[in-house]
Amino acid sequence: MDDILVKLMEKPQLKDPIFIEGLPGVGNVGKLAAEHLIDQLNGVKFAEIVSKYFPPQVLVKDDGLIRLVSNEMFYVKRNDFDNDLVFLVGDYQGISPEGQYMLSDRVLSIVDELGVRRIFTLGGYGIGKMVEKPRVLGAATDQELVEEMKALGVVFSRGEPGSGIVGASGLLLGLGLNYGMRSVCLMGETSGYLADPRAAEAVLNVLVKIVKVKIDYESLRHKAQQIDQITARIRDIESQQGQEHQGERREDLGYIG
Amino acid sequence: MDDILVKLMEKPQLKDPIFIEGLPGVGNVGKLAAEHLIDQLNGVKFAEIVSKYFPPQVLVKDDGLIRLVSNEMFYVKRNDFDNDLVFLVGDYQGISPEGQYMLSDRVLSIVDELGVRRIFTLGGYGIGKMVEKPRVLGAATDQELVEEMKALGVVFSRGEPGSGIVGASGLLLGLGLNYGMRSVCLMGETSGYLADPRAAEAVLNVLVKIVKVKIDYESLRHKAQQIDQITARIRDIESQQGQEHQGERREDLGYIG
Amino acid sequence: MDDILVKLMEKPQLKDPIFIEGLPGVGNVGKLAAEHLIDQLNGVKFAEIVSKYFPPQVLVKDDGLIRLVSNEMFYVKRNDFDNDLVFLVGDYQGISPEGQYMLSDRVLSIVDELGVRRIFTLGGYGIGKMVEKPRVLGAATDQELVEEMKALGVVFSRGEPGSGIVGASGLLLGLGLNYGMRSVCLMGETSGYLADPRAAEAVLNVLVKIVKVKIDYESLRHKAQQIDQITARIRDIESQQGQEHQGERREDLGYIG
Amino acid sequence: MDDILVKLMEKPQLKDPIFIEGLPGVGNVGKLAAEHLIDQLNGVKFAEIVSKYFPPQVLVKDDGLIRLVSNEMFYVKRNDFDNDLVFLVGDYQGISPEGQYMLSDRVLSIVDELGVRRIFTLGGYGIGKMVEKPRVLGAATDQELVEEMKALGVVFSRGEPGSGIVGASGLLLGLGLNYGMRSVCLMGETSGYLADPRAAEAVLNVLVKIVKVKIDYESLRHKAQQIDQITARIRDIESQQGQEHQGERREDLGYIG
Repeated sequence: MDDILVKLMEKPQLKDPIFIEGLPGVGNVGKLAAEHLIDQLNGVKFAEIVSKYFPPQVLVKDDGLIRLVSNEMFYVKRNDFDNDLVFLVGDYQGISPEGQYMLSDRVLSIVDELGVRRIFTLGGYGIGKMVEKPRVLGAATDQELVEEMKALGVVFSRGEPGSGIVGASGLLLGLGLNYGMRSVCLMGETSGYLADPRAAEAVLNVLVKIVKVKIDYESLRHKAQQIDQITARIRDIESQQGQEHQGERREDLGYIG
Repeated sequence: MDDILVKLMEKPQLKDPIFIEGLPGVGNVGKLAAEHLIDQLNGVKFAEIVSKYFPPQVLVKDDGLIRLVSNEMFYVKRNDFDNDLVFLVGDYQGISPEGQYMLSDRVLSIVDELGVRRIFTLGGYGIGKMVEKPRVLGAATDQELVEEMKALGVVFSRGEPGSGIVGASGLLLGLGLNYGMRSVCLMGETSGYLADPRAAEAVLNVLVKIVKVKIDYESLRHKAQQIDQITARIRDIESQQGQEHQGERREDLGYIG
Repeated sequence: MDDILVKLMEKPQLKDPIFIEGLPGVGNVGKLAAEHLIDQLNGVKFAEIVSKYFPPQVLVKDDGLIRLVSNEMFYVKRNDFDNDLVFLVGDYQGISPEGQYMLSDRVLSIVDELGVRRIFTLGGYGIGKMVEKPRVLGAATDQELVEEMKALGVVFSRGEPGSGIVGASGLLLGLGLNYGMRSVCLMGETSGYLADPRAAEAVLNVLVKIVKVKIDYESLRHKAQQIDQITARIRDIESQQGQEHQGERREDLGYIG
Repeated sequence: MDDILVKLMEKPQLKDPIFIEGLPGVGNVGKLAAEHLIDQLNGVKFAEIVSKYFPPQVLVKDDGLIRLVSNEMFYVKRNDFDNDLVFLVGDYQGISPEGQYMLSDRVLSIVDELGVRRIFTLGGYGIGKMVEKPRVLGAATDQELVEEMKALGVVFSRGEPGSGIVGASGLLLGLGLNYGMRSVCLMGETSGYLADPRAAEAVLNVLVKIVKVKIDYESLRHKAQQIDQITARIRDIESQQGQEHQGERREDLGYIG
């Protein structure tokens, strides 16, 4: 078996396509954003990637059918625009450093053949605390892109992210330079504790201006509400436990008093 | 040395063979079930698999002789049936993700040459607590197989197993699709704490209906009794310790009183 | 760079050579025994093995000179005997399962070319407590060898070692079968906590009868005494600390009283 | 993608060049020293090394531009001297044993083509406590080099470093022997807790005598002062916390009293 198996269902003819990556990562921001956009634009799946660099696992769907963990690629053709779109989403990133490099390079060679010259990778920027209004941070392969992004409200902040960008969202930019591709990483600020549809919306707010689409955020906001409810329930439980403990303490005091 | 060494003792000519996998895993359910079936049907060993993907280890048998850790393949010819049987059992699964993929794919290429079109992988579904009457859960590669299994009492339960199927029992299904093979994974419910011959019997109860054999469960039930005795002894010890502690507490109270 | 680099200084012509392995392991028993025997028999180094499967490290000798961590092979020619000897010793075993398999197989291909048909691997059998008179346990590739070893006092004990033999001492036996080599593993019983020259002597006591040599054990016994002294010193310190703690407690009592 | 990608911007023609390595390691001593020397001598970058053996990561620079983690090579041409200089510095060493071996060997093949016969690797020798006047310890590939280094004040101390030299600073010496290169490792004594510009200066004090250059230490000393300030601040905080705790204890006593 090859280290990486690419099953091409179709080799689409695309017009100056822009490549958008959204694999799982911090707060699943990139995955949520990219999958929402594919959904809204009715993306067409044209490739499946299976690899020994992924976990040795199948997933069981609700109907009892299995599928190997994989990455998937979609395209969106757009008659009224200059750029078609190509997407990479999936269940996992490569689980070893070698796997990360090999998978990213392979994806780049696929999108290179499709004519891609521009990449947007989507991810989360974990700050370890709740965020009211998530900023969208950026990193890019050239100064012109930095300026373009700044004009769209993307924050380029010295020392953020301090540790660089780990995984596919970083490697696609770095290795993409070998293919002459110009790239931007958009990172939605997130606590990093939970899947964060709000950070995904913030990232999409920028991205839609670039790729010039209008999308509906309802399903993403619905997910955000569900997560809010979960968070609220957890807080309730914690605060009740707090009161019980307080209660205990009061009893203790009474007993002592 | 090749990454995977396959020593074929014989290349059996088989009639539309069904492939059954039972490697070590949760509760050793698959291994117990497959080995019991091989035993009952007098399976003939025809291949040994040795690999750098297994632990670097030899086992020492009771007579002082060693053997490399390995996987082994058996066949069962059956004159009165439509399908012969092929089995995979062994000491270990591959110990790295890469090893898992490479070994599963290699096994598939072997059984593909033998004409296999149907796979049953056997495993355990660990639920973290004791089970009185273990269910047999299923996952499959197509809807028709799901229906066939349901008719035999196999449970397809939304969200179970939630994390998918890890290891050979999953990969053989997923990668088998590349070979055009149709597959089912049968998972016997088990605590996952100990080897679980009862879950193995539950799995076999389904499997024998599919491969249309009658087998004796005595040795498997004997193993189950042995494990019950061990469990009971542990409980005894724990409960004695519990009483002693209670005793202490009573003494403490007496002292305080 | 090749995965395994073998630097042959000489390709010795050997007479029905017996291969003896003593790499680092439990209690360093095999290493101590093999190195002592090489020393006593004035073995001649003829090969060095360097590999990416060893730690990325050089050792600094007392004169300030470095050498790469390696395995080394020696031979001993013996005019008055039927068998010459070949040895494998070294700083490390392979540090990954893959490395273990690849290195063992490579060594076997080297000794195969030298005409080796018989292997003795030397190791320790860790039992987790101090041993007065260490037994020598055995494992072998055929029943005849088991009987030969029993006649020399080697113990073949059902269920010992229960977990099999991990590493080169096991793999050389298992993989050696592919080369038609007959092999024995001799394991000196040891606590496993410290380097154990006494277990090494026990192993050598058996081995010298097989390869028919007389050797002096002085330097090995000297090492054993040094380790005894270290052990005694540690016990002293521990018992003093015990008394001090007792002393403290007495003072505490006095103060309280 | 190749396991190691070397991007040569230029193939410099060099005069009997000396190769100096300073990758990250204990106290970052080697990296600080080598980067300072490159800076002072206006080294010219001629090669970038990118590899799957590095972490899968891009770094984000202050201007928002990214670059893949890499190793870099510089040269310094010197008209009035017998030897030009070649440097290796970078963000990371290989993160697996295999990577360490493969990267070191690849670098050696590059500098071999440039005509390198002499290597100095720079590193730290961590001793786990603060050092007032760091010694520079040495290790070398031949006795003549040991004597040369001793004459320059380098310490060759029996049993130091006891565990040998791990990583590129060691491997380049050991594997360099395969290329006929003579090498020295210079290790500046350091606590190992923080980046240690003072240990780097100690190493450079030796190295400048060998490569016969005069350099300014100001920027390195400035870094040392910054780290002193950080250390002092940490001590302040710790001592304040200590007093607070003391304060608490005094209050406790008062309350009890």
